[in-house]
Amino acid sequence: MDFDLVIRHGTLVTAADTVESDLGICDGRIAAQGRGLRGSREIDAAGLFVLPGAVDPHVHLEMAISTAAGPTASCDTWATGTTAAAWGGTTTVIDFVEPEPGETLTHALAGRRAQAEGRAVIDFGLHMTLSRADHDTLAELPAMLSAGVTSFKTYTTYSGLKLDDAGLLSAYHAVGSLSGLVLTHAENDAMIQEATRRLRQQGRTDPAAHALARPPEAEVQAVEEALALAKAAQARLYLVHLSTSGAAQALQRAQAAGQHAYGETCPQYLLLTADKYEGPGFEGAKFVCSPPLRQAHDGARLWHALATGTIQSVGTDHCPFNYAGQKDLRLGSRSGVSPLPAFNEIPGGLPGVETRLALLYSYGVRPGLLSLNRWVQVCSTNPARLFGLYPRKGTLAPGGDADVVLFDPRREVTASKAVLHENVDYSPYAGLPLTGYPVTTISRGRILVQDGRWLGAEGGGLYVKRGLAGTPV
Amino acid sequence: MDFDLVIRHGTLVTAADTVESDLGICDGRIAAQGRGLRGSREIDAAGLFVLPGAVDPHVHLEMAISTAAGPTASCDTWATGTTAAAWGGTTTVIDFVEPEPGETLTHALAGRRAQAEGRAVIDFGLHMTLSRADHDTLAELPAMLSAGVTSFKTYTTYSGLKLDDAGLLSAYHAVGSLSGLVLTHAENDAMIQEATRRLRQQGRTDPAAHALARPPEAEVQAVEEALALAKAAQARLYLVHLSTSGAAQALQRAQAAGQHAYGETCPQYLLLTADKYEGPGFEGAKFVCSPPLRQAHDGARLWHALATGTIQSVGTDHCPFNYAGQKDLRLGSRSGVSPLPAFNEIPGGLPGVETRLALLYSYGVRPGLLSLNRWVQVCSTNPARLFGLYPRKGTLAPGGDADVVLFDPRREVTASKAVLHENVDYSPYAGLPLTGYPVTTISRGRILVQDGRWLGAEGGGLYVKRGLAGTPV
Amino acid sequence: MDFDLVIRHGTLVTAADTVESDLGICDGRIAAQGRGLRGSREIDAAGLFVLPGAVDPHVHLEMAISTAAGPTASCDTWATGTTAAAWGGTTTVIDFVEPEPGETLTHALAGRRAQAEGRAVIDFGLHMTLSRADHDTLAELPAMLSAGVTSFKTYTTYSGLKLDDAGLLSAYHAVGSLSGLVLTHAENDAMIQEATRRLRQQGRTDPAAHALARPPEAEVQAVEEALALAKAAQARLYLVHLSTSGAAQALQRAQAAGQHAYGETCPQYLLLTADKYEGPGFEGAKFVCSPPLRQAHDGARLWHALATGTIQSVGTDHCPFNYAGQKDLRLGSRSGVSPLPAFNEIPGGLPGVETRLALLYSYGVRPGLLSLNRWVQVCSTNPARLFGLYPRKGTLAPGGDADVVLFDPRREVTASKAVLHENVDYSPYAGLPLTGYPVTTISRGRILVQDGRWLGAEGGGLYVKRGLAGTPV
Amino acid sequence: MDFDLVIRHGTLVTAADTVESDLGICDGRIAAQGRGLRGSREIDAAGLFVLPGAVDPHVHLEMAISTAAGPTASCDTWATGTTAAAWGGTTTVIDFVEPEPGETLTHALAGRRAQAEGRAVIDFGLHMTLSRADHDTLAELPAMLSAGVTSFKTYTTYSGLKLDDAGLLSAYHAVGSLSGLVLTHAENDAMIQEATRRLRQQGRTDPAAHALARPPEAEVQAVEEALALAKAAQARLYLVHLSTSGAAQALQRAQAAGQHAYGETCPQYLLLTADKYEGPGFEGAKFVCSPPLRQAHDGARLWHALATGTIQSVGTDHCPFNYAGQKDLRLGSRSGVSPLPAFNEIPGGLPGVETRLALLYSYGVRPGLLSLNRWVQVCSTNPARLFGLYPRKGTLAPGGDADVVLFDPRREVTASKAVLHENVDYSPYAGLPLTGYPVTTISRGRILVQDGRWLGAEGGGLYVKRGLAGTPV
Repeated sequence: MDFDLVIRHGTLVTAADTVESDLGICDGRIAAQGRGLRGSREIDAAGLFVLPGAVDPHVHLEMAISTAAGPTASCDTWATGTTAAAWGGTTTVIDFVEPEPGETLTHALAGRRAQAEGRAVIDFGLHMTLSRADHDTLAELPAMLSAGVTSFKTYTTYSGLKLDDAGLLSAYHAVGSLSGLVLTHAENDAMIQEATRRLRQQGRTDPAAHALARPPEAEVQAVEEALALAKAAQARLYLVHLSTSGAAQALQRAQAAGQHAYGETCPQYLLLTADKYEGPGFEGAKFVCSPPLRQAHDGARLWHALATGTIQSVGTDHCPFNYAGQKDLRLGSRSGVSPLPAFNEIPGGLPGVETRLALLYSYGVRPGLLSLNRWVQVCSTNPARLFGLYPRKGTLAPGGDADVVLFDPRREVTASKAVLHENVDYSPYAGLPLTGYPVTTISRGRILVQDGRWLGAEGGGLYVKRGLAGTPV
Repeated sequence: MDFDLVIRHGTLVTAADTVESDLGICDGRIAAQGRGLRGSREIDAAGLFVLPGAVDPHVHLEMAISTAAGPTASCDTWATGTTAAAWGGTTTVIDFVEPEPGETLTHALAGRRAQAEGRAVIDFGLHMTLSRADHDTLAELPAMLSAGVTSFKTYTTYSGLKLDDAGLLSAYHAVGSLSGLVLTHAENDAMIQEATRRLRQQGRTDPAAHALARPPEAEVQAVEEALALAKAAQARLYLVHLSTSGAAQALQRAQAAGQHAYGETCPQYLLLTADKYEGPGFEGAKFVCSPPLRQAHDGARLWHALATGTIQSVGTDHCPFNYAGQKDLRLGSRSGVSPLPAFNEIPGGLPGVETRLALLYSYGVRPGLLSLNRWVQVCSTNPARLFGLYPRKGTLAPGGDADVVLFDPRREVTASKAVLHENVDYSPYAGLPLTGYPVTTISRGRILVQDGRWLGAEGGGLYVKRGLAGTPV
Repeated sequence: MDFDLVIRHGTLVTAADTVESDLGICDGRIAAQGRGLRGSREIDAAGLFVLPGAVDPHVHLEMAISTAAGPTASCDTWATGTTAAAWGGTTTVIDFVEPEPGETLTHALAGRRAQAEGRAVIDFGLHMTLSRADHDTLAELPAMLSAGVTSFKTYTTYSGLKLDDAGLLSAYHAVGSLSGLVLTHAENDAMIQEATRRLRQQGRTDPAAHALARPPEAEVQAVEEALALAKAAQARLYLVHLSTSGAAQALQRAQAAGQHAYGETCPQYLLLTADKYEGPGFEGAKFVCSPPLRQAHDGARLWHALATGTIQSVGTDHCPFNYAGQKDLRLGSRSGVSPLPAFNEIPGGLPGVETRLALLYSYGVRPGLLSLNRWVQVCSTNPARLFGLYPRKGTLAPGGDADVVLFDPRREVTASKAVLHENVDYSPYAGLPLTGYPVTTISRGRILVQDGRWLGAEGGGLYVKRGLAGTPV
Repeated sequence: MDFDLVIRHGTLVTAADTVESDLGICDGRIAAQGRGLRGSREIDAAGLFVLPGAVDPHVHLEMAISTAAGPTASCDTWATGTTAAAWGGTTTVIDFVEPEPGETLTHALAGRRAQAEGRAVIDFGLHMTLSRADHDTLAELPAMLSAGVTSFKTYTTYSGLKLDDAGLLSAYHAVGSLSGLVLTHAENDAMIQEATRRLRQQGRTDPAAHALARPPEAEVQAVEEALALAKAAQARLYLVHLSTSGAAQALQRAQAAGQHAYGETCPQYLLLTADKYEGPGFEGAKFVCSPPLRQAHDGARLWHALATGTIQSVGTDHCPFNYAGQKDLRLGSRSGVSPLPAFNEIPGGLPGVETRLALLYSYGVRPGLLSLNRWVQVCSTNPARLFGLYPRKGTLAPGGDADVVLFDPRREVTASKAVLHENVDYSPYAGLPLTGYPVTTISRGRILVQDGRWLGAEGGGLYVKRGLAGTPV
């Protein structure tokens, strides 16, 4: 056989295997695993891990929001955000479509897809957000599946997005009956509104109040409710960005009783804690995201849940806003009258699309919390399988897209704004030492990053029509 | 490349992948995955699953025991038992060494290994049983690891085998400090002795009393205790043949708290229930094993525990005794004075080494309780990884032993003594319809079974020196 | 001392004591416990238990509802219902005020109180139902407390009554900040609506579908939600008529974490199971109540929860409808076109105000599930304490109202329509043998029932202004 | 009526009632509750709580032990210890009989009783310790019951005392079949031995190592085991001095499943934490007791378990050793060679018999963790009921012994060696401010303490033959 590209002498690390083998690539796809393969082009991977490209199932690029300072958008574009992803070893992202009021799902999908095409440097998929559960909206679901959108996001909080439990149940039922997958952001809105009102009444506006306004119980309650409704609707459920020990326990109980429910957490919930909100001045705002950062014991429990199978997936919820000019901006801020937004006016979201793979290696694999294979499972294989990308993505088995990452387990990097490519003026992980870092990224056989050089091109990434959800490993 | 043997057009099903690919074999090892491979010899696997050979981590061949009728042994020899295993798609078994009182571990290992070599038709490993935890015995552990015995079995019940909790703790500590793996048969002996005494006092001798004599609480208590002691000793623990819902819950709690503890169950606990003991006449004796068969709700919980990662491994605890002449025999039986043994005198153990893969497919994968990949994980990859056989066994990745099984997912078979090759006069699964069955078995590139023909040879199986325990998928 | 009435030689059984003592009564109140007391009038209680009169915290007398056959009302009036209560050993009932849309709480309370006064034969209190949580409604709460209404009922189901979670949280917060007690009927309405819709779509109209339309998960979810909201609002919560094992477990977890939450169950959930809905013809309708009857394992768990303190109170949810003419009636029924109401059109509710004390004794105390004192606690003392009636009610200590019941532990009765005084054409407990029955009932020193004779008078019962909730024993 | 003594104008606080009433006493027994009682002698209790005398179910007076410095004994004698108890509001203690090896239970009981009679100033009972479970020993149980010893202590740790699980099961079975109550000190001995060995190997001798040598898991494991064995044996079980959150949870699970199991904790586990072991110099030794002090979260959970009924009883495990000359003494200490005992050589035990009632009021009732009535339940009524002292003790109902305490809820005291009467040179509670203190103590109508004066007499306390265990409130 003659390969277009052979990655030689590396250690293939996949969801289940860690073996010395070459990897042969033809026509943008994995063609063979074996030793002694030769190709027109060869990369020496001796001493490196050869991974299936990471899949980030939860990003928000160019997401339009309205703030106290007027409309804005998350500050990574399809171009900058996917470039950062590629530098970090991620070769597929799944973002969201959020239809406007009155807009059809079909129209919104077309618009969002058009926005990305020609600009994304890696492949991408789209989840559809269901902020309504009326008959007409749900009647569009089969068309969505045909268009490769097989997963549907619902919210229990945020006005304009949240569904009440009857709405959730209708949505779950409709998605479940088509074998689609439901994603839910689970935080009890009433509890949040009440806590926010009380804190504001007490005069609190500082970022540290953000964590108090969204207590752990709000997540646990909403997770329990979503699980109960999904069970009633016989729908498979994927709970996004779990942040609390209690949520992990509720999910585990449901799974042990046989329910098909899955969980995602994010690096920020594994690694950062609520004391970040106590930072000097307004710096706490850099960490404002929802759900908020929690306590150390939550993180410990989430690591165990990730290791033992209760949580199957790690997304980033990448949704960056510049500290200067977005996080700290409020209508009239410039005039000095009201210099800073209150905790509940700060645009919520953190950057993270570039650091996931390296963070989980340094702080998960190296201390023994995750096996090498589990690391690949949660960062690549499981997101691929759960969101209908497998076997194109998430594997190094023959036939799949040649999305491959070379990871140097000995490379030492300190996270900082300087070393990262995210289009945002800070990193929540700045200062964290990392041992192990991606050095080469390949998307469908095209080398995007190699040894510190950028070789990718805007528009090289394609929209992926996704199939029905599979089972995680 | 030129392969000795190529399996073409099959669907490779591994711990993480399900892909169309050929498989190339050279020198008894997997050489490549890829399409369009050609070899000196080729097997057409179109329409078949191509699996890594199954690994049975728990068998008892030619196991000597004493009974009410005098000394006897489990009735499958190394030759017959491994032959049956091969027919069933199992290419590696791990059996046990049980040193005699006063015998060194080294001597006992040599004897047991000699008994198997030249007779086993597939590869085999050996666990060492620790029925003593004295200084001299534990001082032999490093030699055992050097000899490829890296897992150590302890018992909480059976006189002659059981350790008290101080003994367990010493054994756990010693094994753990060498990074070995402890296996424990966990049933509270005092509870069993007391229940047995009470039942015999009430005049009960029938097989149905067996389940009453070993109540679920006896397992749950001993599992909780073993977990607590292993945590104290910082030893990794593998709990064999879990049979109860309560044990699965206790194990799950420990894992969620971060403990490295693993569980095994067996097909009999997933599929059979205690009403089997109510069979006509003495037929209940066919199902006497320890722990005993339980209730339907236990089986349901065990399936969920297996699917969601609480239980990682399925062994068979294959330990057959003929119904006629072993199960039904008692000293003086022939004279007619005391025709049948009492429930606690019946040799305990079931056959099962041949049926595991097919049972788990028909009753696990087909109804959706397990994914295809999870099936491979629990029957092959995880036993291989947990017992230090990986990456030689448990995978189809390049470099591993070419232990390969072709499985026809449409083949229909009804389990019966007639279709099975186990050297015992009954099957506990007789009458169960199966859809999906292994059709070809290959061990290190040697075809043992092909389309109903036996091509294997006694002594073709080799002793495998095992490495330290890895992490299950 | 000289007493108006002395009960001599009985065994006083209270929440904590079981002692031989006389009981002296003056001016309608307990004046003394001691031996050798003499009075103007004396009752010999030798061989009898002398109990504080039972308090039923959950009844619905003359409750107006609308049905498929038009408006109707529960068929026990204040006169008949309280008479039946007195015969059964209950000397205080707490019923509900349900304001009409637009009606103030104050107006509704006055109307409901007027309806009862002059007709009730025993003392009564009133809970206020909050079917709105708007500012004006909540502003009336202080007036309610002044009027002796210190407990407030909320619903998560029933259109016209249910509050969404924001409404619940507002209500809880408002009540909690006044140190009032919130009662919640917890069943997830969306799950019920969806299940009902599906069952009707499948053509189900039979009473047995009632249990399927209100699955256990609907209660468990709503209980978990109510607990989470009450915790957030720092309000004390009393969960009415718990029917499932899962609800008891959720409540226990909350209590163990320090939450002030309480539970009530009813005799029907302890003693009857869902197979009653399978009765011949339309007879299942006799058992239609919400939540529905459950499985035997639920009842077992509820008994244990009652015995060990997780559930503190037993109410009856007495809400009787005649089988003939209410349960079986539908608009047009008489014409024969649509002879019977569908399961979700049957007026929901069971009689039970008369049988509680005897049922709990026969099926709780006698088999050892409850101690004698726990029986008094759950039927009398705890409802009195939780609803601010103590120390007037729920005790035999000096100073309290002389509400006293003489209970013959050896009296044998078979429950039937004939022996009961409830104004309804059936008893769900008909045919149940009882050992132990109340024989004499005294309300504030006035003998209402003595040895089978009725001595009470309509209007003898008074409205009781209740204080703030105390702590149960 | 004419009373010997009337306590006037107080607030009677019992297990279930809090009422204004006088209390009349005749012939050493409670004769009446009521208002306006008059007697030959009267005590004005206006503003005071009138309580049933507290019952301490767990004390060790003059307990002989062997230490590194030779044989010694706990330093409160029957005279001094019961005097201190009386000052603290305790009118009954239950101590232990510990037979010597070879000594019959009968002989040991006679000896221990003789030691106490004529010296105790309050009434006392005796538990029997079973350090053997052989046939002859268990054959003495009926004689013990006849002699008023109805509760039997077993140990899972301490050489010379501990039973293995077969021994425990035999003991439980024997006691259970006679309807007796089993007490168990539950800590896994093997785990303790192993941890101790390891700590000593590491050179640790300091008091702080004591807590590490007896880890929480050792208690939890042994509690789970004792519960499992007691369930198998159908024996009622009382777990002494629970100190961990995990133990409370295990007990709760057993109770929720219907098991008759009870728990005791002690003030030291509710109020003190393991950081006490870090005291200056050797001061940590003052807090050495087994199980050891734990973490703050354990205490929080124990308070909740006590409030919600999982734990029914508070004992003191009063077992004082002087800091100077007992705690700090070692063979050869005086010579200066080895100045101090290692952590595992320090005599284990704390004083506490005098402070229980006041500590639980100040730190349980006042902050709202316990109701007034629950306080009486756990300090008096439940110990009385569980150990067969009721209705003589634990109540103010007519007929019981006139063991009465007047407690001033406003009296402020700071705990110290100076204000206490325990015969030991320190108090672990020294410096703790108390609000609420016992001011008058009456035993069978005899005033022992009144307003700071001691009126009692050695030998005034009598041995109480106890009946079978009742049910706690």
